[in-house]
Formats: sequence, structure tokens, C-alpha cells
Amino acid sequence: MNYQSAIYSKYLSNEKMVALVSDEALIERILKFEAALARTQQKLGIIPSSAAETIISTLAKTEIRPDDLAQGTMQHGIPVIALIGIVRDLLNEDSKSFLHYGVTSQDALDTAQVMIASEAITLLTRMLADFQNNLEKLDNAYGLTRCMARTRGQLAAPIIFGLRINSWLKPVQRQQQRIKELSTRVLKIQLGGAVGDLAFFKTNGKALTNELASQLGLASASSWHAQRDTLAEFGNWLAMCSSIAAKMGADVLIMSQNEIGEVEELNAGGGKSSTMPHKNNPVLSEALVAIARLNASLQSRMLEGLVHGGERDATAWILEWETIRQMMIYSATSLSHAVKISSEIKVHTDIMERTVATFMAKNQK
Amino acid sequence: MNYQSAIYSKYLSNEKMVALVSDEALIERILKFEAALARTQQKLGIIPSSAAETIISTLAKTEIRPDDLAQGTMQHGIPVIALIGIVRDLLNEDSKSFLHYGVTSQDALDTAQVMIASEAITLLTRMLADFQNNLEKLDNAYGLTRCMARTRGQLAAPIIFGLRINSWLKPVQRQQQRIKELSTRVLKIQLGGAVGDLAFFKTNGKALTNELASQLGLASASSWHAQRDTLAEFGNWLAMCSSIAAKMGADVLIMSQNEIGEVEELNAGGGKSSTMPHKNNPVLSEALVAIARLNASLQSRMLEGLVHGGERDATAWILEWETIRQMMIYSATSLSHAVKISSEIKVHTDIMERTVATFMAKNQK
Amino acid sequence: MNYQSAIYSKYLSNEKMVALVSDEALIERILKFEAALARTQQKLGIIPSSAAETIISTLAKTEIRPDDLAQGTMQHGIPVIALIGIVRDLLNEDSKSFLHYGVTSQDALDTAQVMIASEAITLLTRMLADFQNNLEKLDNAYGLTRCMARTRGQLAAPIIFGLRINSWLKPVQRQQQRIKELSTRVLKIQLGGAVGDLAFFKTNGKALTNELASQLGLASASSWHAQRDTLAEFGNWLAMCSSIAAKMGADVLIMSQNEIGEVEELNAGGGKSSTMPHKNNPVLSEALVAIARLNASLQSRMLEGLVHGGERDATAWILEWETIRQMMIYSATSLSHAVKISSEIKVHTDIMERTVATFMAKNQK
Amino acid sequence: MNYQSAIYSKYLSNEKMVALVSDEALIERILKFEAALARTQQKLGIIPSSAAETIISTLAKTEIRPDDLAQGTMQHGIPVIALIGIVRDLLNEDSKSFLHYGVTSQDALDTAQVMIASEAITLLTRMLADFQNNLEKLDNAYGLTRCMARTRGQLAAPIIFGLRINSWLKPVQRQQQRIKELSTRVLKIQLGGAVGDLAFFKTNGKALTNELASQLGLASASSWHAQRDTLAEFGNWLAMCSSIAAKMGADVLIMSQNEIGEVEELNAGGGKSSTMPHKNNPVLSEALVAIARLNASLQSRMLEGLVHGGERDATAWILEWETIRQMMIYSATSLSHAVKISSEIKVHTDIMERTVATFMAKNQK
Repeated sequence: MNYQSAIYSKYLSNEKMVALVSDEALIERILKFEAALARTQQKLGIIPSSAAETIISTLAKTEIRPDDLAQGTMQHGIPVIALIGIVRDLLNEDSKSFLHYGVTSQDALDTAQVMIASEAITLLTRMLADFQNNLEKLDNAYGLTRCMARTRGQLAAPIIFGLRINSWLKPVQRQQQRIKELSTRVLKIQLGGAVGDLAFFKTNGKALTNELASQLGLASASSWHAQRDTLAEFGNWLAMCSSIAAKMGADVLIMSQNEIGEVEELNAGGGKSSTMPHKNNPVLSEALVAIARLNASLQSRMLEGLVHGGERDATAWILEWETIRQMMIYSATSLSHAVKISSEIKVHTDIMERTVATFMAKNQK
Repeated sequence: MNYQSAIYSKYLSNEKMVALVSDEALIERILKFEAALARTQQKLGIIPSSAAETIISTLAKTEIRPDDLAQGTMQHGIPVIALIGIVRDLLNEDSKSFLHYGVTSQDALDTAQVMIASEAITLLTRMLADFQNNLEKLDNAYGLTRCMARTRGQLAAPIIFGLRINSWLKPVQRQQQRIKELSTRVLKIQLGGAVGDLAFFKTNGKALTNELASQLGLASASSWHAQRDTLAEFGNWLAMCSSIAAKMGADVLIMSQNEIGEVEELNAGGGKSSTMPHKNNPVLSEALVAIARLNASLQSRMLEGLVHGGERDATAWILEWETIRQMMIYSATSLSHAVKISSEIKVHTDIMERTVATFMAKNQK
Repeated sequence: MNYQSAIYSKYLSNEKMVALVSDEALIERILKFEAALARTQQKLGIIPSSAAETIISTLAKTEIRPDDLAQGTMQHGIPVIALIGIVRDLLNEDSKSFLHYGVTSQDALDTAQVMIASEAITLLTRMLADFQNNLEKLDNAYGLTRCMARTRGQLAAPIIFGLRINSWLKPVQRQQQRIKELSTRVLKIQLGGAVGDLAFFKTNGKALTNELASQLGLASASSWHAQRDTLAEFGNWLAMCSSIAAKMGADVLIMSQNEIGEVEELNAGGGKSSTMPHKNNPVLSEALVAIARLNASLQSRMLEGLVHGGERDATAWILEWETIRQMMIYSATSLSHAVKISSEIKVHTDIMERTVATFMAKNQK
Repeated sequence: MNYQSAIYSKYLSNEKMVALVSDEALIERILKFEAALARTQQKLGIIPSSAAETIISTLAKTEIRPDDLAQGTMQHGIPVIALIGIVRDLLNEDSKSFLHYGVTSQDALDTAQVMIASEAITLLTRMLADFQNNLEKLDNAYGLTRCMARTRGQLAAPIIFGLRINSWLKPVQRQQQRIKELSTRVLKIQLGGAVGDLAFFKTNGKALTNELASQLGLASASSWHAQRDTLAEFGNWLAMCSSIAAKMGADVLIMSQNEIGEVEELNAGGGKSSTMPHKNNPVLSEALVAIARLNASLQSRMLEGLVHGGERDATAWILEWETIRQMMIYSATSLSHAVKISSEIKVHTDIMERTVATFMAKNQK
């Protein structure tokens, strides 16, 4: 995920999700984590109140650009050290040592990532709801139209178009159910300190975790530095968002072929060719199918990310860094295209019915 | 999944799961589906009672070998047609037309697959329970031993060994929770008829589905011929079984290096070399890591399997055929190896503690 | 690759290739390696002549079944130790210690694998030649027929059918060129001894390698135990065999849709449905597309197999074991289906031309 | 490839390659293609000389930002239409219709992509040469030092360190050989017109192709719009660049563990922890291993890209768009890190030799 194409920023990406997962958003969440940490440690008497106030007010006005972290990330293999260094340089001597107090880079980075996931889930579930809503409308409008089922590439028998719409709709409903279940496992704080046991805080560790989680609106949890299964199940959910949208895309590609002509992807007309003005290309559906394959291939990396050696293993962890943000972008792109198609698709009910009639005449005597 | 290696049948496979997912098991489940279908249709008065009895008794004594289906599967792209053909040839004229009455090949194949998945889940959750139990014992025995945390390949700080054991245990517990949630979506009947709408049965479709599901011990459901998301979430769960076992495998590989020497994979000694008799190779842990990567790569296919064109699409469906059985085998292999290691691992607490002492002496002054 | 489906043995597998890559074939190649090793060591005076003769004659009559190796493979993480153990038990005291003299399990296993690859290449290049030949005939017969180009799922402009055939043919020709280049790197002996330096043989190592390679019909090479790049390039070639066949498959699936009707997959008719007798399913083309995706996903493992720690690393090596044989099978299956389709496809030139005429009438005025 | 992280721009990316594959570079190559096309068509008398001059001078001063193409790419599913539109608006009436004359978007996009590949190859082969050079120096300096071979995670037998260096070096040499072979197939012009047959140019097609190819420094070729095998073999080469570097990375990770201590990744010291100042993390080697896995997973998409329906198929083509640039970036990142490590690695020959001595004392008596 190292080159951002502006050219494809609308077709194969989604600007809302890009904003959510951006470097800037990540930095902001890390700063928010550090501020909430100081506030909680102040509350629990772990750090001096004045140091906490200084840290919190300094964090609030610290501006860090992604570029500022590039060299430090190269050197230390993680961006948090450079980020903390920048903030620390802005603090007075009395508060310096109480910044990022007793926690580790991974605490900040993982929790920031979870905060981003939480917002991403809000965006994606809203998109799923819109998609579902459009499909229900589509079903109301055209669900009873007779059309030909196609099995294994061949005309099979008449169905109602609502049956096909249903095959787009049902998985959307299940995705909504799944994310409710997953969220209880995914949206939790990461707090373990250097090696995961919060030993630094002695008996205060548990209280600190609970209170900080509460401040950040996340579930409390013991450290999961080397337990990456919850992110992998979230990754699979993301990939399924693309895949279920691609089922509709695949159907639109079939139905919109000229000789079949049952639908056009968009009422307003599709993509043009540089040489063939008559073309009406279903370019969003093509993207849906392609993105589903791209996202599917990414999930294999999330699953490999669980093969984690020791208490922290960047050979595994980097797989997530390079994957999870991209998966969120792909999922949002897919759902956004799916919402558009399901809202604007042009259905030729006359052709659907004519094809049924022709088929029946030929196959029934 | 087209060549079965007997050589690797214990090391990279699992005989219990192979039996569950075998061709023979698949055929048996399809025959069971057809028998339950006839019984249900008899009960609901859809087919003549005598035809049902003939069909059921004939199915009970029909023996079909996998080889018998190879040619027909090649010709029709699905094994069910040949299988039904064999049974039909054994029936009398009065019952012939009531076999597989009003249903389609995919109904039989998908439901058989789900029946197999149900048994596979029973086996795998039992293995997870054994693994969990072993880890709890290990924690009781050695959990308080001090050892060095390793982060990013380097000695970090002392922890207790229980913290590392915990990173193996927690994901196992979550797997148990996940499968409960998933099962409600996965373990359901497939019944749609030719094109998914059970039109053949007119108003009887719903009753038939409910009753047949009940007979087969599955949830009732409308047809999901072209909705493959539930299998994809099951696939991800399978891959996670391997991945969480491989976390322990990766740790054993690190800890059992000669210079580190904190554990030996098996009390009884490990793999030997053909030339180096002193070797004590942690060969199960190696397999765990490799299998996790293999299973992870397979999940990308299950997710692609959702990109399904029309009402039945073998370009997508075949991806499942070639993947889901293999994933079940890999998951069982991983858990079986994990159960063995967690039961028989040799822990050198003296070395763990000595390494901590050496580290402390060097890094604290 | 742990369950062999007899059901799908013709549709998604290839019996000739299965025979080539079978456990039995692997055992035979290992035995052949050991015999050639003894002969060469005899010739170079490395082992006593009488011991060599005993070893060679014993190997010639040793029968080892794959099952015999399962337990030993589980224990040692490699089949060769058990295999050598069986042979050694058949030898007299004077020859025992000269079996597998100074070499390591990986030498035998890798060289056996290369011998199999060599035969697989012969089979696959013959299939490529048949495929090419059929395509040339097809081009001769129908190449000048006018048909519609389809771009992005839509009718584009008239072409000659020969242009599409050419898009199937050209990659086949390039595959033939590639395999000539690759073979010089792939088809080489593995001989390194315990740790890759043939130190055991002192100054004789180089001569032994050259002579043994010559005996086995392979190129000589220094040990590549931990250098797996040549197998990964072979893997990519295998995957490309499936992918180029799938290009034709994808086209047949489009052209054979009922409303399009330009071709039927097979002159003799396609797959049937269990409920819809009118169906004529292009089931080989479906398999081509699916297998290409399956094989493509496998190549990612071969590339991961290069990430090899130390002088031998089974976490990487196992990836090959579980992949390369399956890839050979998939490639042979694809080419076999492609040969059949390209030989038996039914081309409806009248429909092709009619569609062009309709299009021209509509888009030109 | 839809979000560019500045944070990870040095650690998991490579700025030189990012510049080569940037949107800006792509636009520049497309403009260059169009200019060379006009020049060639002028030379062959296909378009009026004055129109050609106007087009060429206009292209030379046209400035197009990637953002300018985002909306058009969304609408048409390809950036070239919007780009041509912008240029056309700058042309006078006499030349407008001779811009992009008789060619198609894919001609411009594919040829631009090949031009980028050509420059990428130059950069990467230079990096390979530097890597090779460093390894040869390393071998000169330390090749004869005795160290322990490690097989299957365990100490095996003494070797010289040069043997391990050799396992890093040999694949680099083979990569250089491979790219020479591949380049003859990859670095070729794409020119087919709307549907691949250059029908627009009647008898001039061949001459136009040859001359334009010559102008652009590429090989001449008939259209390969739907033949994507050459890019897939290039993709595999790119993935192998990362994988062979990761072999060294994996070895450094093993050798630099504290208890082993044979090397440190960088003379100057490695990555630090935010909480553990004693840490010396081999962060480049970690990145090498992770990137190899990332790049390996991407190659599966390139291979899927061959499954191309009809004469142009964006469901396949998009897979390349989202992959090939990222693969080039990953390969350059890997080689850059590998060059740095191989130049700056700190080798503790004393520890290597001491470990050998300890091993020998223990295992020989």
C-alpha cells in the first residue's frame, strides 16, 4: 500500500474511507491514545496531575505530518518512536518522562488501528444498510418480473427476478449480523506495556486498562500483542463485503451483454470507449468483480499474520499494516459502487419476459 | 485436491478427518439426503408411499464406489447425475421417477457437504477442547516460570511463561465462541430445486424444506445456491484453527533452537536426520507453521467462490470443491499436532530462568 | 494435497500426471537415485565395488509401499529416513553403511522431484504441442469467419474469429519457448550432503556430482538446498499453462451462452442437468477457468517457499511438497481439457456472421 | 494500491521506484506514446503533417495532473479517455481528429506500462548488481569463517560462512539471467486499435507498428490486448526479487538473535524500542521477510489476470492495474534493504567459531 493513485481514486478507491484510514487519521488516533492515557494515569494517580495536564495540552496542539515519521519508521521499524520523540521535545522536563508512560509502541499503534476500525465499521454498515434498502426497493419494483434463471452459463428455467435480487440481499443481511458478533471481539483496547504484562504498573494494570478502554469507547481486554485472530476475522468480513457486492456485479455483467440485454448498469449510461462511441460499458460491475478478487487475495495475508513468533514479530505484523487499510478501502469502494448500481440500474422487463417466452416456446411442446 | 499422498498421510494430514471428508463419506451423505427426501415427500404426500419405501430400501442397499462416478462427473461436471443414474437403474418403473423428485444436483451436493461440515465441526471443537485443556495444564505446571520475552527477534524483558501460554490459549477460546455463532448460519439445508425457487412443489416447498431439514438435523433455509458467504466464513474459521496452532509452533521453533534451549518439542525426542544422529528436529512445529500458510492461501479461494454468476456457476463452485475438504484436513492436522505438542512438550525451566538471570545481570546495573 | 478424490479424478485431475507424480513414482525415483549414487561411488572408488553391487541389486528388488513410510515421515518430518531404513534392513553388514553414503535426505528427495519434473515437462510440452496443433487447425477451418469482438462485456466491432484464436495460440507458443529456457535451470541434480558442502567427500565432491548428474540425465550443479528459486519459476510456468488454457475457456463460456450461441463446447454435447434435459453445459470450460484460479493461488506458496531459514527449513520446504505435485496435476488437467475443446468445439459460423450483420445494420447508417 | 502511506514511505516502500511508477510518470508515458504515434503517422503519411506537428507541440506543453483524470476514470473505467479529451480540447479543428488516431485506450495504457517496466528493470537490475557486488565482498571478507549450519531449526554441522552467502548470491545471478530472457517478451509495443486487428489502418498496420516500436525503443509485436502472459512472467520475476532478498533476511533474523549473536543487521545498530533502550532490532530483515510474503500473494493476481474474456476484460485487467506497480515498489524496497544489509552487516566471526568449537566438543568424542 505504498503508492496512492489519484487517477484511480474514485474508480478503485473510496475517498471517505481513504480519509478514515489515512496517515493523518492514524497519527491523530495515536495522539488521542496518548492523551487519554495521560488523563487516565492522572485520574488513577499514576503520574503527577500537572505533568498530565502539560502532556494533554501539548498533544492537543502538536502537529505531526506523516513525512515527519518516515525516517524514524525506517530506522526503528515502527512509527511510534519518532512520533513520541517529536512530542517529547515539546514537553518540559517535569512532564517528559510521563509521556507514553509505561506503555509500548504497539499499544498505541494497535489501539489507534482499532479506533479506525470502529469508524470504518460505522461507515461500512451504513453502506450495507443503503445497499439493502436499494435492493428492497428494486425487489418491490421488479421482483415479480419473470426472467430466465441461468445455471452453468446456460438458460435453465424461468424464475422471478426477485429470486436473483434475493441472492444479492440475503448475504447483506448476514453481514450485518456478523459484524455485531465480531465487533465484541475486535473493538477492544490494546494495552500491555513492553512485553504484554503491564508489569510496569504493578497492581494498577487492570484498573488502568479498564479506565482507558472506557475513555476511548472500547472494550477492556488483556494484551493481545501476539494474538491477531480478531483482526483476521475482521479482515474476512471486509473481504466478504466485496465478494457479496461482486455477486451482483457478476450478474449485471451477464445480464447487460448486448445479446441478453436484460439490464443496463446505470440509467444514465455506462463507460465509453475511446474509439467506439456506441459502447455502454458496465464499468462499475467490472470493478466489483475485480475488487472482490483483490480483497480475497489480501485475506490470506491477514491469516498469515497470526503466525507470530514471540511477544512481538514484525515479519507477521507488517502483513497487517500493508493489508488492513487497503482492505477497508476496497470494501468501501465495492459497497459504494454497489449502492450506486442498485439505485440506478435500468431493468428491461420487456426483454426479460420476451426471453422467457422464447425459451418456453422452444422447450415446451 | 487430486492426489492423496499416503507418505504424508500422518505428517501433513489427519486420518480421522480424511475419513469424514472422503468420497465415500460424500456418497453416503448424498444417499442419506435422497432417502430423507423420499421419506419427507412420503410423509407430506408428495410421492406415493410405496415408491418412497422402494426408494428408501434401495438406497439403503446401494453401494456406489467413487470410481463409479468419475466418468459421469467428467461428462456432466457434477457427480450427482451419475449417482442418481446408478440408483435409478436399480428401481422399478413405479418408483424410478420419484427418486430425487423435484430437486437438483446442487441440493444433494451442498446438503451433503453441510452434513460433513457438521461432523467436522464436532471433531474440530473436540480437538480445540483438548488443546485448551493441555494448555491449561501446561500453565498450571509452568505458568509462573520466569522467562525472557522476545520482541522483534530480540530479548526484551522478563515475563512469566504463562503469558506466552496465554497467547496460545486465548485464541482457542475465541475459536470456540466463533463456531457457535457461525454454526447457526452454516449448518442449514440446501433445497431449491432446478433454479432455487422450489417452483416444482408449488405451495409445498416451505413445508418440505422444514420437514427435511428437521429429518437431517439441520436448520431450515431458503435456497442459497448462489449465496456462498456462509461457507466462506466457515473457511476462515478453519484457516484460523491452523493459524492459532501455528503461533505455538512458531514459538516452539524459536525456543527449541540449540543456543536457546528453553523447550524441546516432544519429551520423547524429535525428528532425526539421515546423516546427523544428534539432531532433534521439531518437525511438528515446522508442519504447524507450514500448514497455517497453506490454509491461509486456500481461504482466498473460498472468498472468490462468492463471485457467482447467475443461479449456478461452476467456475466459482469448483473453487469450493477443491478447497473446503482440504481446509478441513489441514485444520484437523494442525490441531492434532498442537494437541500432541501441548501434551508432550519438554520445558527446561532451569534454562528459562538462567537466561533471565544473565539478561538481568547484563542490562541492569 | 492430502485427499485424492476418485470422483473428480477425470474432471479436475489428470490420470497420466497423477501417475507421474504419485507416491509410488516418488519412491521409485528415490530408489533410482540411490542406485545411481552407489554406481557412481563405485566407479569413482568411493565405496567398495562389492558393496555397490549388493546395494544396486537390493534396491532393484526392494518394494516399498507409500504406507510403509507414513509413520516414519510423521516422526522425522521427511520420508527418506524411513525409506533408507527399510532398504538398509535388507542389506548385509558389508554394504549397510555404504547405502545413501555421505548424502542427505534432501539430496534424494529434491533430485527425485526434479526427475519427476523432467517427465512432467515432457508430458506437458506434448500437450501444449497438441493444443497448438488443434488451434492451428481451428484457425485454418474458421479463422476467416467474421464475428463480433467483445470488449468490456459489450459488442465492440467486427473481427475475424482467427484473431480470437490467435489470442489462445500465441501464449502457447511462448510457453514452449519459456520451458526451454527454464529447463536449463530446473533440471539439475541436488547433491550437497548433510549441510550442502559435500565435505564428507573431500576432493571427490565435484566429480561425484558431475558423474551422478550424467547418470541421471540431469545437469550438474552445486547444492541448492536452500535456494528454491528455480522451482518457483517452474511453478509459475505451470500456473501459466492453466491460465492460458482458461483464456480459451472464458471465451467459450461467453460464446456458448444461449442468446449468443456462437459455439458449443463439444460437438457431442455438453453436461446435463439432473432436472433440465435441455441443458448443454460447457463444463470443461468451467473447469478451465476454476483450475486457473486454483493454480494461480498455489503459485504464491511456491514464492513463499524461497523464504528459507538456514541450510534447510521445513516451514518453507513443506510449502513445495504440498504444492508442486498439485500444480503439475492442475496444469495437465487444464491442457488436457484444452486439447479436447480445441479439437471438438462446434463453431456456428452462421450465427457469428449474423450477429455481425445485425450489429452493422444497427450501428452504421 | 489506493492509499500511499508517507509514514512507511522509506521502510516499506522505495522512493525511486515510486517516482518511476507514479501517476505522473504514467501520464507522461501516455503523452509520449501519443506524440510518437503522431510522428510515426506523419512519417508514414497516415495523418497530415501539419496536424502531426500541432499534436506533437501541444502534447509537449500539456500539463495533466492525476486528479484531472479521477472523474473520467470513474466514468469510463479507464483513464485514457479523459486524458485524450483534455488534449483534444487544446487542439485546433484541423488536428483534433488526428490525435490518438485509429488506436485504442489500451494501446496507450499498455505501452505506457511497458515503458515504465523497462525503466523499472533498469533500476532493479542495477540494484541486483549492487547486491551481488556486496555479497561478493562479504564472501571475500568472511567466506572462510567456520560457522554452524542450521537445518530444521537445529545445529547441524560446521560449514564455512561462504556457503550461506552463496545461497544468497546464486539466486541473484539467476535473476539477472532470467530478466534478459524475459525482457525480449515483455518489452514490446501494444498496438491493436479498437479490437486488436489494426483494421483501421488497412495495409499500413504492420509498418506503423514497426516504426512506432522503433521510435519508443520497444520490440514490435502484434496486439496482445487479451494475452497477458508476458506481464505475469514479469510479475513472477518481481516477486522472486523480494523472495531471494528475504532468504538473506530470514538468515539474519536467525543469526542476530541474542543467544546466537553471529551477526548484527547493521554496523550502526538497529531499531530501538519505545520502552527498551537495550534493543537492537533487525528491522530491515523483518521487512524483507514480510515484503516477500506480500509480493508472493500479489503474483496470484497477475496469474488470474490471464483469464481474460473476449478482446478486453476489465475484470481481469484491473487486477494488473492494482498489482504490477505495487510489485515493482515492493521489489525495489526489498533490493534496496538487501543492498544496505549486505553492505553494513556486522559479522561476529569470533562467535561463529566459538559456536562451532562448542558443538564439536559436545558431539565428537
